[in-house]
Amino acid sequence: MTIAQNLGAFAASPIDADERIERFVRFSLFDWATVGLAGRNEPVSRAAREMAMSAAASPDGATLLGGGQVTASAAALANGATSHALDYDDTHFGHIGHPSVAIVPATLAMAETRKADGKIFLDALSVGLETACRIGAWLGRSHYEVGFHQTGTSGAFGAAAAAGRILRLDEDRMMQALCLTATRAAGLKSQFGTMGKPLNAGFAAEVGVTCALLAEAGAQSTPDAIEGPQGFGPTHAGVADDAAFDTLGREWLFPGISYKFHACCHGLHAMLEAARSLTIEGLNASDVEAVAIRTHPRWLAVCNQPEPQTGLQAKFSYRLTAAMALAGIDTAALDVYNDETCARADLVALRDRVTVIPDDALSDTEAHLTVTMKAGEQQTAHHDILSKTEPDAIERRLRHKSSALLGDRDASDLWETVAKIDGPNGLSALIGQIGMSAS
Amino acid sequence: MTIAQNLGAFAASPIDADERIERFVRFSLFDWATVGLAGRNEPVSRAAREMAMSAAASPDGATLLGGGQVTASAAALANGATSHALDYDDTHFGHIGHPSVAIVPATLAMAETRKADGKIFLDALSVGLETACRIGAWLGRSHYEVGFHQTGTSGAFGAAAAAGRILRLDEDRMMQALCLTATRAAGLKSQFGTMGKPLNAGFAAEVGVTCALLAEAGAQSTPDAIEGPQGFGPTHAGVADDAAFDTLGREWLFPGISYKFHACCHGLHAMLEAARSLTIEGLNASDVEAVAIRTHPRWLAVCNQPEPQTGLQAKFSYRLTAAMALAGIDTAALDVYNDETCARADLVALRDRVTVIPDDALSDTEAHLTVTMKAGEQQTAHHDILSKTEPDAIERRLRHKSSALLGDRDASDLWETVAKIDGPNGLSALIGQIGMSAS
Repeated sequence: MTIAQNLGAFAASPIDADERIERFVRFSLFDWATVGLAGRNEPVSRAAREMAMSAAASPDGATLLGGGQVTASAAALANGATSHALDYDDTHFGHIGHPSVAIVPATLAMAETRKADGKIFLDALSVGLETACRIGAWLGRSHYEVGFHQTGTSGAFGAAAAAGRILRLDEDRMMQALCLTATRAAGLKSQFGTMGKPLNAGFAAEVGVTCALLAEAGAQSTPDAIEGPQGFGPTHAGVADDAAFDTLGREWLFPGISYKFHACCHGLHAMLEAARSLTIEGLNASDVEAVAIRTHPRWLAVCNQPEPQTGLQAKFSYRLTAAMALAGIDTAALDVYNDETCARADLVALRDRVTVIPDDALSDTEAHLTVTMKAGEQQTAHHDILSKTEPDAIERRLRHKSSALLGDRDASDLWETVAKIDGPNGLSALIGQIGMSAS
Repeated sequence: MTIAQNLGAFAASPIDADERIERFVRFSLFDWATVGLAGRNEPVSRAAREMAMSAAASPDGATLLGGGQVTASAAALANGATSHALDYDDTHFGHIGHPSVAIVPATLAMAETRKADGKIFLDALSVGLETACRIGAWLGRSHYEVGFHQTGTSGAFGAAAAAGRILRLDEDRMMQALCLTATRAAGLKSQFGTMGKPLNAGFAAEVGVTCALLAEAGAQSTPDAIEGPQGFGPTHAGVADDAAFDTLGREWLFPGISYKFHACCHGLHAMLEAARSLTIEGLNASDVEAVAIRTHPRWLAVCNQPEPQTGLQAKFSYRLTAAMALAGIDTAALDVYNDETCARADLVALRDRVTVIPDDALSDTEAHLTVTMKAGEQQTAHHDILSKTEPDAIERRLRHKSSALLGDRDASDLWETVAKIDGPNGLSALIGQIGMSAS
């Protein structure tokens, strides 16, 4: 029995409160109400109340992905979780996390409730994404390896900066928003594989909104809350790589973002890109005799299901996804990862001729493919997902992905909306599309 | 310049977004909206949306200390901060924190929005306080010393249990509420001395409300999120003292709570209790020649302002508060700690005859007082704030404190309300008093 199961059983079961318990719980309640009322005019009380009332002033101001309108903080939380639900969102390797799922929901909720225009929205989004990437790089690898989920932790700082920018916080209040975030940012990697992972993105978005609103209301914190003694970095195993801030304001890190173009485990993407380059050059799956995949050893424990039977297993299978890609199946689509694909005879036959070879000469973002044709000759391909892709190519791939997920029409509408977002009613148009009802 | 100041300046200043930045921020937005819409029917998305809509269903359901009505989560946050603003609330030394300021606001906000009665409210409050004390003891001293503020961290778990109990979560959902809390609980001691300290209590209350609502909506997490690999304890320097749960459900730890009876630094309380015992026995300040205070050495760096000039300094002064207590000033009141008291001639004269002596034979909850009378004889007193106080004596002291803070009438009304809270409309009466307007 885990601690949570033990406490869960306790907290869900009838209790046998005797006179002493009843007396002390009343003492605590009475004392709480006394000091609470006595403290209601303190500056922090006024700031917290102002923040709460400010949120209450637009109780239905922010739109949810899937429809519905709620407060900014609730929308930020739900939209963060929803957009990370498929784990198909962008990644920034310097940040060591997924920037957009924390930053966009916070920026959007704040922009909608404060009636910002699309231009201000884009500006705040850029600043938020950049802030998250800088903090993520400053916290570094040790923070992640100890168990923290940078999407949640660094994401909260980025969300606070973006939300604060919509609120037009000055330098000092923006600093306060970030320092309040330092005592609130959280998120554990041990939630991976559960709803806790996407929720971490939502929690980060909510923290950003709330801390920006608190700073707007005058809440103050300690200026070195990020790096000072027992600050966020020191208490959360941060590397504290101050070089992460060297080019702040002069260069931008966030455009180094990597978009996902395949609806499966990230460990498979380099291989799938290599396979894709061969099919573009005309390779035909029916001519293939055998395939050898070389990849970084760490992925063999992650995504090397040799004979997947379900859609979920397929998303973690080098052999099957290689066969799918060579056979021309669109691995950007979600619905191709299913039981039928796992059982399709031609794919299984090809899958069984795929060999996966660990190769620690490769980085974990690289893969190498050797395809031996029935005619005897070999074709090879290599891909590193950190290799620079031209913006025009990114655009084509993103639009293709969107079509595969939403259908051509919605994808095209969405593209147009984003293109015109800084024009008249641009943000309203986006919000209208975001609010499409859940089925 | 701190990191937050650096990032704050960046995030508050105009940016020079070139074509590349504008293109990539649109890519990220487009991709975010694509995967967000594609994921809107996922189970986590439905749970998060249901939670948000459930909060939106009673946008003005929860009352603020100081007046106003907002959502349950916003009320929990603001009331938590407000009740910890004076730092005059209860302490539990096993928990290593202040239980009520995180648990009561969460329980009250949830009870009001879900129209629970006073009996259910008290029951949930007991369970929440107990859960916080157990988790606090399990996390132990190392968690605190590394830099975490148990009021915020353990408090969040207690708040989740209490809020979940109002929601009548079953064992499994209660467990989920606690495991979601594990990826969300936060709070740093480095915020002490700023508004961040009281806000940590509010954040904990909000986390409890939100995670309980998420669990009610079906959100799931990993069952060993508290103690498992890279769970909350391991990533937050917890002692992991499993003995903390040995008597769970059979014995109650929370009634070991210590109430504050003096409106000053906790390090002064044992001395003030010792002084109080001498005045009760009839000691007269004008007969005192000299006073020697023996206390644990650690307090000399905390609350040994020798010649305080301001009310705030007075709250950290052994010498002056000893003089105040011996002179019969009510140290439970807030308004006696002021510049006039610091300057009062008779108090200054007595203050200057007080000596503070570090003594590591005493624990940090003990103090020893030796008062030498002008007539030559000595009177001594000793107090340990962990010593057991009879409930009737606690009741008298709490009511006295409340009168000193709120005036006799409000204190008396509040006492009656708490006494009758499990009777008809008991909770409404409390809520009415909580909502007294701020001045």
